Formats: sequence, structure tokens, C-alpha cells
Amino acid sequence: MVTDGLDFPAALGAVAAAVEAEMTALLGDDSEAPSRVTEAMRYAVLAGGKRLRPFLVVTVADLFEVPRPRALRVAAALEFVHTYSLVHDDLPCMDDDDLRRGQPTVHRQFDEATAVLAGDGLLTRAFDILADPATHPDGAVRADLVRRLALAAGPRGMVGGQALDLAAAEARLDIAAINRLQSLKTGALIRFACEAGAVLAGVNDQLERLGSYAEALGLAFQIADDLLDTEGDAAELGKAVGKDAALGKATYVALLGPDEARRRARALAERAASEVDHWGPRAALLKEVAEFAVRRRV
Amino acid sequence: MVTDGLDFPAALGAVAAAVEAEMTALLGDDSEAPSRVTEAMRYAVLAGGKRLRPFLVVTVADLFEVPRPRALRVAAALEFVHTYSLVHDDLPCMDDDDLRRGQPTVHRQFDEATAVLAGDGLLTRAFDILADPATHPDGAVRADLVRRLALAAGPRGMVGGQALDLAAAEARLDIAAINRLQSLKTGALIRFACEAGAVLAGVNDQLERLGSYAEALGLAFQIADDLLDTEGDAAELGKAVGKDAALGKATYVALLGPDEARRRARALAERAASEVDHWGPRAALLKEVAEFAVRRRV
Repeated sequence: MVTDGLDFPAALGAVAAAVEAEMTALLGDDSEAPSRVTEAMRYAVLAGGKRLRPFLVVTVADLFEVPRPRALRVAAALEFVHTYSLVHDDLPCMDDDDLRRGQPTVHRQFDEATAVLAGDGLLTRAFDILADPATHPDGAVRADLVRRLALAAGPRGMVGGQALDLAAAEARLDIAAINRLQSLKTGALIRFACEAGAVLAGVNDQLERLGSYAEALGLAFQIADDLLDTEGDAAELGKAVGKDAALGKATYVALLGPDEARRRARALAERAASEVDHWGPRAALLKEVAEFAVRRRV
Repeated sequence: MVTDGLDFPAALGAVAAAVEAEMTALLGDDSEAPSRVTEAMRYAVLAGGKRLRPFLVVTVADLFEVPRPRALRVAAALEFVHTYSLVHDDLPCMDDDDLRRGQPTVHRQFDEATAVLAGDGLLTRAFDILADPATHPDGAVRADLVRRLALAAGPRGMVGGQALDLAAAEARLDIAAINRLQSLKTGALIRFACEAGAVLAGVNDQLERLGSYAEALGLAFQIADDLLDTEGDAAELGKAVGKDAALGKATYVALLGPDEARRRARALAERAASEVDHWGPRAALLKEVAEFAVRRRV
């Protein structure tokens, strides 16, 4: 698989196909495990999605000429963690969602207990994959990847953000509070996605630049999500606001208005692109991700 | 802290106190994280317990002269994983328990969403702790510990055992099936507890012996648990069988009868003790754990 020379949608699709094949192979290792929970893990993982995080891992890894099989293992581990967070987030005691991407959520397709265990299993497998010698010959690199992913996913990262999000339903958040919530809930994993390729390559002096890119990119994506939530629904007759607004959740659009939100998302995408200017044309796909963040309609 | 020369209950208590101090310190690192979920993590972790798994980690680590701070970090990480499994197991969609050790379970004391997230946070932090350079200077050892714990806790270990346990409520298990269920659900973590000290010491040629010890010990503990469940309740007027039997769960006692179950538990404890004979008097505490497994009344 080569992503150089492909246009952005084709490159995104090529990585999605490759990481789905990798995840399928990795889940195959669990074939001797009890079937219902592994079946639920497979169902959750292969339910589609843009595979944005794997794309960032693979694209940054390409920038530093990391062997593709190593990048795909890290991309798969990260997508397992992202998927686990969706499975637990959808539970009745959390967001209580019946559908995700038009398909029944894991607890609707299977049952709640299986959804809890499938999420637990995906999170656990992710660390297993990173720590496996097949991911990198140097144990210190493997341990560093484990540590960074655990920090990004744990109480000081995604789990902390989810806890803030639960509390936010009853609180009046301002922009600073939403920034903090999003930086933990979704930003931390995006940062890992952007840093992992450099960690795999041992290029630790580029982590700050990649972190700045990730931060701007993650926020641009989030504001664009808020805009899509509003405008997607606004297109439907008699339904001017989307799910977040209906739930009374503070969003960028609710606090800033759509015009200012759009302006900020664009400025963030430009800031993200300028962070990777350093690498010139080799970073073309990373610039296109930033452009995609604010231009996409899905 | 010195455990040599103490009698067994004192040695067990000393390790419990030391690992509780370690866990408290490690949770202190999350003080900047959102408070409700870290509060729930602390509540779950510090709710007491025999701290058997930490005792096994520390005792085996002592056998190989591993520096105590390293052993305590691994012991704390393992206890985080054990605690996470209890928090998720107690959820309404799983065993639906309101009390654990006489205190409200996490979802009763806080709420279900917080309990899910607290469990997720504990599991994630465990890998963070193992991968941290403070646990061992050699990255390959840290990655090996991560991998072994992930295997023990994941779909081919504890999560797989929990899935079998859910399915067992509707199935008629025989002794072979119960052995498999217990070997996954509780045996895998006990095996990690017994192996970790040797991994920390780089003594990989003793893992098989420690694994055999762990296997016999884990099974002895489980049969003794089944016996206590039956006999504890039998002592109460008009209540001849315990919770497992009431739920129609197959147990060793139900399948073998109390006399044969007791005989097997004792034989397993003796087998465990004989596995560590190799180390002579230095393994005295490991032999006492085996004795304790079948003699305890709690």
C-alpha cells in the first residue's frame, strides 16, 4: 500500500482498508477466547468510520520512514482504544445511544454486560499490541508507546474528559471549560495519533511540533462537528438545532454563534497546516487533513 | 518494611499496608484530573481486602532480591486491575451487587457511569504504572510486564473468564468447564502475580515453576471460596446453601460434594507447596499462602 501520490480521499480510504485488515488479523488471535465477547469486539471495531486516528498515525510514520507494519499495529491499537471509548460511551448509563452509524450499538446488538466486557477487552488488547515485540524491536520504545497511550486514555486524558462531559450536563460551561473538556476527551488521543509515528522513529525532538499540530487539528475537528450537528439538523424542516443543543450541552456553536465558530475552525485548520510547513511537500497529506477537518460534510 | 521473620498474618498485613500506601501515592498523581472519577477510583481501591495478589508479587520479588519499590509498583498496578474487575463485575448489568465488604459498591456510592469510568481509569493507569521507567530501568522488562498483564486481563484471560461466567448462568458446567472458567477468570491474574517478581529480576527460567505453583494455588483458593460460600451460609439457620447455589451456578462443591471438594483443595495446596520446595526455607511464606488458601475462615 502506498499513500504518496494518491489524492486525500483515496489515501484516507487506503489506510482505512489496511488498518481494518490489521485489526481483523489481531482479533483473530483471540479465536480461542470465549466467542460472544470477541464477537462483540469484532462487531464494534469493524463497524466503519473514517479511521482518522489511524490515518494520522500512518501519515506521520511515513514522514519518518517507519516500516508500515509497525505503524499499522500502533494504528490498530489506537483504533481499539477509540472504539472501546465509543462502546462504553453508548451504554445506557452514559449517553444511552441505540444506534451508531446506522447500526445497533454493541449493547443493543448483544447486551449490556457483553458491551462492558467488549470495551474492557479492546482497551486491554491495545496495550498488549503495543507491548508486543512485533511493534518495535526496542523495548523502551514499546514501553514509551504504552505510557503515552495510557496517559492519553486515562483519568488525565480521555476518561477524565468523559467524566467532565457527564458533569457538564448540569453545568454552564464557558469557552475555556469546553476547550479543557475537548482537549481531554478527544484531543489527547489525537495527540497520541500525531506523535506515535515520531516515537516509532525515535525522532523525539519533533514531538512538540506534532503536538501543536494535533492540538489545533483536534479543536478544528471538534468545532466542525458542532457546526455539522447544528447545520445538518437545520437543513431538516422544523428542527433548527441538533442533539447537543437539545440536551442543553454547551457547544462552540451555542457559545460563539455559527459565524464565529466557523471563523475559529478555519483559523485553527490554518494554524495546524502552518505547524507542518516545516516538512514542506512531504507533509502535504497532513495539511489536507486540516483542510478536510473544516470542509467535510460528514 | 521487612517480611522475613514475621509470621504469615503479620507479613500479609505488612504488604497490604505498603501496597495501600503505594496505591494512594499513585492515585495522588491524578489530583489534577476531574475529581469525581478519581474519587471513585480511590474509593474502590482503598476499600480493603486481603491484598493477596500484591502479597504474591512482593513475596516472589523478595525471593529474587528485587528492590522493594519496583515490586510495590507492580503490586499496585495488579491490584488496580483486580479492583477494576470488581467494579465492573458489580455493575447492575453484571452481578448487580449493592455491597462489597459491607460498603456500598462504586455504582451505589457514586453512579453507574462513574463506576464504568472509574474501572476504565484503573485499568488504564495500571499499564501506565508498569510502563513507567520508575518500575524498571530496562524498557524490555517494562514492556514484558505490560504484555503479561494484558494477556492475563484480556479476552484470553480475565475478560474471557467473565464472559464465560455470564454464559454459565444458562449452561450446565462440568468440572472441566469450571476449571477452564476459573483458570481464565481468576487464575490468570494469580499467575501474573506469581511470575512478576521473576520477570522483574530477569529470572525467566523459573517462570514455569512459578506458573505451576500459581495454577495449583489459584484453584485451591477457588475451591475454598466455594466451600466457604456453602458452609458460611450453612451455619446460619435455615439457609443451607449460599449465593452461587441459589443462582444455580455450578460450583466445585455442588459438583463434587463438600468432602471431595475439601480433599481436592488440600491436595492442590500441597501440590503448590511442593512446587516451591526448590527454594527451601526462603520460600516459607509462599508455602504458607498455600496453607492459608485452604485453612482460612474468611
